[in-house]
Amino acid sequence: MIFLKNDYGRGAHENVFRALEKVNYEYHDSYGDDDICMEAREFIRGIVGPGVAGVHFIHGGTATNKTCLAAFMRPYEAAVAADSGHISVHETGAVEATGHKIIEVPSDDGKITPDQIEEVIEVHNMSQMVLPRVVYISDTTEPGTVYTKAELTALRECCDRHDLYLYLDGARLAYALTAPKNDMTYKDLGELCDAFYFGGTKCGALFGEAVVIMNEKLNENFAFVMRQNGSLFAKGVLLSSQFRALLEDDLYLRLGKKANDMAFRLADGITARGYDFAYTPESNQIFPIFSDKKVGELDRDVMYTLWEKRHDGTQVIRLVTSWATEEKDVDDFLELI
Amino acid sequence: MIFLKNDYGRGAHENVFRALEKVNYEYHDSYGDDDICMEAREFIRGIVGPGVAGVHFIHGGTATNKTCLAAFMRPYEAAVAADSGHISVHETGAVEATGHKIIEVPSDDGKITPDQIEEVIEVHNMSQMVLPRVVYISDTTEPGTVYTKAELTALRECCDRHDLYLYLDGARLAYALTAPKNDMTYKDLGELCDAFYFGGTKCGALFGEAVVIMNEKLNENFAFVMRQNGSLFAKGVLLSSQFRALLEDDLYLRLGKKANDMAFRLADGITARGYDFAYTPESNQIFPIFSDKKVGELDRDVMYTLWEKRHDGTQVIRLVTSWATEEKDVDDFLELI
Amino acid sequence: MIFLKNDYGRGAHENVFRALEKVNYEYHDSYGDDDICMEAREFIRGIVGPGVAGVHFIHGGTATNKTCLAAFMRPYEAAVAADSGHISVHETGAVEATGHKIIEVPSDDGKITPDQIEEVIEVHNMSQMVLPRVVYISDTTEPGTVYTKAELTALRECCDRHDLYLYLDGARLAYALTAPKNDMTYKDLGELCDAFYFGGTKCGALFGEAVVIMNEKLNENFAFVMRQNGSLFAKGVLLSSQFRALLEDDLYLRLGKKANDMAFRLADGITARGYDFAYTPESNQIFPIFSDKKVGELDRDVMYTLWEKRHDGTQVIRLVTSWATEEKDVDDFLELI
Amino acid sequence: MIFLKNDYGRGAHENVFRALEKVNYEYHDSYGDDDICMEAREFIRGIVGPGVAGVHFIHGGTATNKTCLAAFMRPYEAAVAADSGHISVHETGAVEATGHKIIEVPSDDGKITPDQIEEVIEVHNMSQMVLPRVVYISDTTEPGTVYTKAELTALRECCDRHDLYLYLDGARLAYALTAPKNDMTYKDLGELCDAFYFGGTKCGALFGEAVVIMNEKLNENFAFVMRQNGSLFAKGVLLSSQFRALLEDDLYLRLGKKANDMAFRLADGITARGYDFAYTPESNQIFPIFSDKKVGELDRDVMYTLWEKRHDGTQVIRLVTSWATEEKDVDDFLELI
Repeated sequence: MIFLKNDYGRGAHENVFRALEKVNYEYHDSYGDDDICMEAREFIRGIVGPGVAGVHFIHGGTATNKTCLAAFMRPYEAAVAADSGHISVHETGAVEATGHKIIEVPSDDGKITPDQIEEVIEVHNMSQMVLPRVVYISDTTEPGTVYTKAELTALRECCDRHDLYLYLDGARLAYALTAPKNDMTYKDLGELCDAFYFGGTKCGALFGEAVVIMNEKLNENFAFVMRQNGSLFAKGVLLSSQFRALLEDDLYLRLGKKANDMAFRLADGITARGYDFAYTPESNQIFPIFSDKKVGELDRDVMYTLWEKRHDGTQVIRLVTSWATEEKDVDDFLELI
Repeated sequence: MIFLKNDYGRGAHENVFRALEKVNYEYHDSYGDDDICMEAREFIRGIVGPGVAGVHFIHGGTATNKTCLAAFMRPYEAAVAADSGHISVHETGAVEATGHKIIEVPSDDGKITPDQIEEVIEVHNMSQMVLPRVVYISDTTEPGTVYTKAELTALRECCDRHDLYLYLDGARLAYALTAPKNDMTYKDLGELCDAFYFGGTKCGALFGEAVVIMNEKLNENFAFVMRQNGSLFAKGVLLSSQFRALLEDDLYLRLGKKANDMAFRLADGITARGYDFAYTPESNQIFPIFSDKKVGELDRDVMYTLWEKRHDGTQVIRLVTSWATEEKDVDDFLELI
Repeated sequence: MIFLKNDYGRGAHENVFRALEKVNYEYHDSYGDDDICMEAREFIRGIVGPGVAGVHFIHGGTATNKTCLAAFMRPYEAAVAADSGHISVHETGAVEATGHKIIEVPSDDGKITPDQIEEVIEVHNMSQMVLPRVVYISDTTEPGTVYTKAELTALRECCDRHDLYLYLDGARLAYALTAPKNDMTYKDLGELCDAFYFGGTKCGALFGEAVVIMNEKLNENFAFVMRQNGSLFAKGVLLSSQFRALLEDDLYLRLGKKANDMAFRLADGITARGYDFAYTPESNQIFPIFSDKKVGELDRDVMYTLWEKRHDGTQVIRLVTSWATEEKDVDDFLELI
Repeated sequence: MIFLKNDYGRGAHENVFRALEKVNYEYHDSYGDDDICMEAREFIRGIVGPGVAGVHFIHGGTATNKTCLAAFMRPYEAAVAADSGHISVHETGAVEATGHKIIEVPSDDGKITPDQIEEVIEVHNMSQMVLPRVVYISDTTEPGTVYTKAELTALRECCDRHDLYLYLDGARLAYALTAPKNDMTYKDLGELCDAFYFGGTKCGALFGEAVVIMNEKLNENFAFVMRQNGSLFAKGVLLSSQFRALLEDDLYLRLGKKANDMAFRLADGITARGYDFAYTPESNQIFPIFSDKKVGELDRDVMYTLWEKRHDGTQVIRLVTSWATEEKDVDDFLELI
């Protein structure tokens, strides 16, 4: 089977796994207080900038989003997100379970714009309505698109105008920062966001995400919120050692780049064979449109995700490459269509 | 000033106030266990039908919606509502504060259709997503439209197909059941809904709503959920005595009818003067469109609600009649335009 | 029947009911924005002191406690309360339903001491534990005892040492401030508490409580939390008009004094007949100990509350007087024992 | 340094780590749907019994308790737990954050008895109070004591009498089931509990817990609650592969036994040197009492946990052995005292 179903079908990159193996046979302090956590935090401060207020390691993405949004808002405050946002649709109401509404704005490409936020702010003007406080974006977005620095800067300025926090879900950050369209660095993210996270689970780690909080106020007592949400990992060293290995020598970006290369090789081949896409390919997730018949034929040999069954005899499927995808996987797929 | 701002600007109809005065000087048992509560429940069973599982009195609409939805769902379950629904926009996230997502579907007229629910059901097909469980509708809706029996029956059938509960917010039920377009009785509501409420606050009571639960399962331990949500009124007799007076001799419907008559007199006059409406008038809330200048002139003499400031020099305003509106109020308004 | 079951068996004092009747037949603005709300707030500022940050009217006690504690704390923060506290045992977990733990400390008389709070603070010293933030007390307490100014001052100082908020549940404040042991005024409460409320439901109003917030920070966006918790009453004038009437000319204190006088008349008579009490009578709730047989005899003529069935053939019952209790009620009861 | 601070200072036992390494380099399905999850579930059904309704893998203990209790209760229901219970004191209000009260009962040894539950049931007899629904116990308990089969059977019978669920927190189950006092098997747990979990994090796994639900009703839609609580691990194979390795050939019990042997060797040595214990040693956590001076001397060479600073010049410290503790660690410690 050719695995193009998602980017979390494999474990960790070898470097990361070896780092984990090393700490496995040592005693370490727990709950984020071990030496390697300290080192990993300093390393991240080094690549993101001296303004980092706190770095926290959490085992997975939904838990990270839930914990951050619970920590950043008062009860009547709400997050603004694209209607395709991960928190909007694919976390079983995890944010609402902490008591907060998500204000969903329509998005064709997974991104949201300052104009949309302005409109939300204009409408939410009385105590009968929730108070918008956090702007949630993901980069790459759920349909694989990527923010530019100009776009993120415009969102930042909008947030500044309205006293909003900008939070970036980086579950696929390695793929975003190495996408052709990207023009941002780690430091840019630090300067533009109140908080963001380095996704590990989907980007070369065995599991885990590293939250970087830039806004001192949002970092206050964050560990309490982590623990209350089941997000304070007992053996923190398992997370910090992975992130240390992942970020060192730009392994993170090299893995992201490789996945994007494979995705574009795949997209080019699909285009060359005359197929179209539901969204223009920008990163490691691509969404070709095939006939029902063609998709049926793929079932035997390919693991993919059905994205949308249209009523015109076609289907959109999602194909995802990862740091582990090989050229052979791509070429084998292209031979099938 | 001509008061057309809302239907809760006045206290109770005289009959209701007198009923309250009577019990004010007596000792009564508390928390819904008084004799008058028992009688009022029996009375409501009489007009709605023998299938009533429980009747509960709550002090206001938001508390009623919050309490019902908290009681009817498990944590991961969600309510489906129009994007104009009261729970969607005007309760400061009260439902989300109990941990539940509201799935909002677009609506031009405040109503939702079985097709929209079918689509929600089709999409929500895995544990990454919340599980739709309650269909929330309001009658009259927020923009004043009214459900027909055929529409409600179709919703009921859709709910039956997908194991959903149908909950009807009756904050303005008196106005709905006496609207020209209405063809439903109390008994129809009982047969078609899992739960609904008789709105009192906006329909002639001093305050309070009477929840009628038809589905035995939803009634189980409802008093616990009421109390946990601050909705179990200590002096229940204050609520039950009002509802007894309000429902007796069809006072409720007579008050609703009067408000609708006033609204149509108003709407006809506005139409006769050449103005248009944002929504076709169907009940006691109407939404005429005036020029900015005209609205400016009204400010001195009329209390109304600004609904939407358009960018073409016009505004939609909301004018609301109630059981307390007099012909003179209407005619005075019409002279102004 | 002689009604000594509780202090919410009756409606409003006549003055209060007349004030309500007056506003019933007028149009008023809603959600706390009416003129009478403004006046009542100013009146309360006059009697409590210029430091009042906000006054908010809520329909009942559980809703008030739930709303205040939800507003005052971040998610991982907790309230400290006596294990007999109303929020601890008699609100069906309303505070926990907003996500907060209540740290219960043992209390024989319903009061808590600075030493107990110090111990809680000492133990709660890491992010594995909730962070104590609010000290909840009630005056009178659930078993009818009363705080002195020295006791409240000591609690205030303890709160200042540990950055805690002091919140006083005044459901029975009229009875507390007129108890023989009391040496506090409205102004003292304002100076010592971060927030407290004037109980109306149990002290002469038809229903309702008036929250007084002294700490500016706690007042911020309070209306949003009220609405989210179903506590923002649509017809605010119904609450403000009652409180205006209740507080004017010290009616509140006169009603409290009368109830206490009746309670002591009752207690003295019971003592004279050779019975003992579970708690020393201090206010309008008294807890005599009778034999099972004696209690059985009372059942026919008296409405009271069973407090504790002991295993030695005796029972503690709760007898409660109110502003509405008459000498005849007391004397009739005494004849029965 | 001699590490006796806790039983989560080390990673995984070698067998477990090797199993993880194997799956690291393969593609697997996600969210608990992989083949190895299926196998591990079958394996667990084999050792616990055919009555297993569901097996779910979660990354850590707090998340497991939070998820289970959120899944098992309706909003107004409560868990009964010892006041030393992990959910009561050391999870930063994680259970309350899902809206549920924990009713704490006093316990000297970390265990609770049917009599205590009966008393809770007797008191909680009205809708003003939460409704007890889950009995939470831990085995071993927080102070290291162990339940016998007779004790657990008595709790089960009490639960049956009152329609309560019995939930056993098995964070240290390996140590419980191999304690000298234990007389229970996996099958006994399955027959007596509604749900329990095999603790992995503290018992030889790298991380993770395996929840076993026996009661079909409690298993319904459990995955939704997992995801909503951030507890549905993306790469489920990382958890299932570990548990398969851990439970195979009774490795789990062998690791537990070794830790207990080391703990008793340590306890015997401490006793022989004339020291006493705060709790009688029963498993891998022991609580000797040393003078302040002696504890001060240990600081240089030993990692331990301060449990209680007494006011008589002594301290209780907690010493914890694990599957990784060696005889040399024990003997080195004994030489120091």
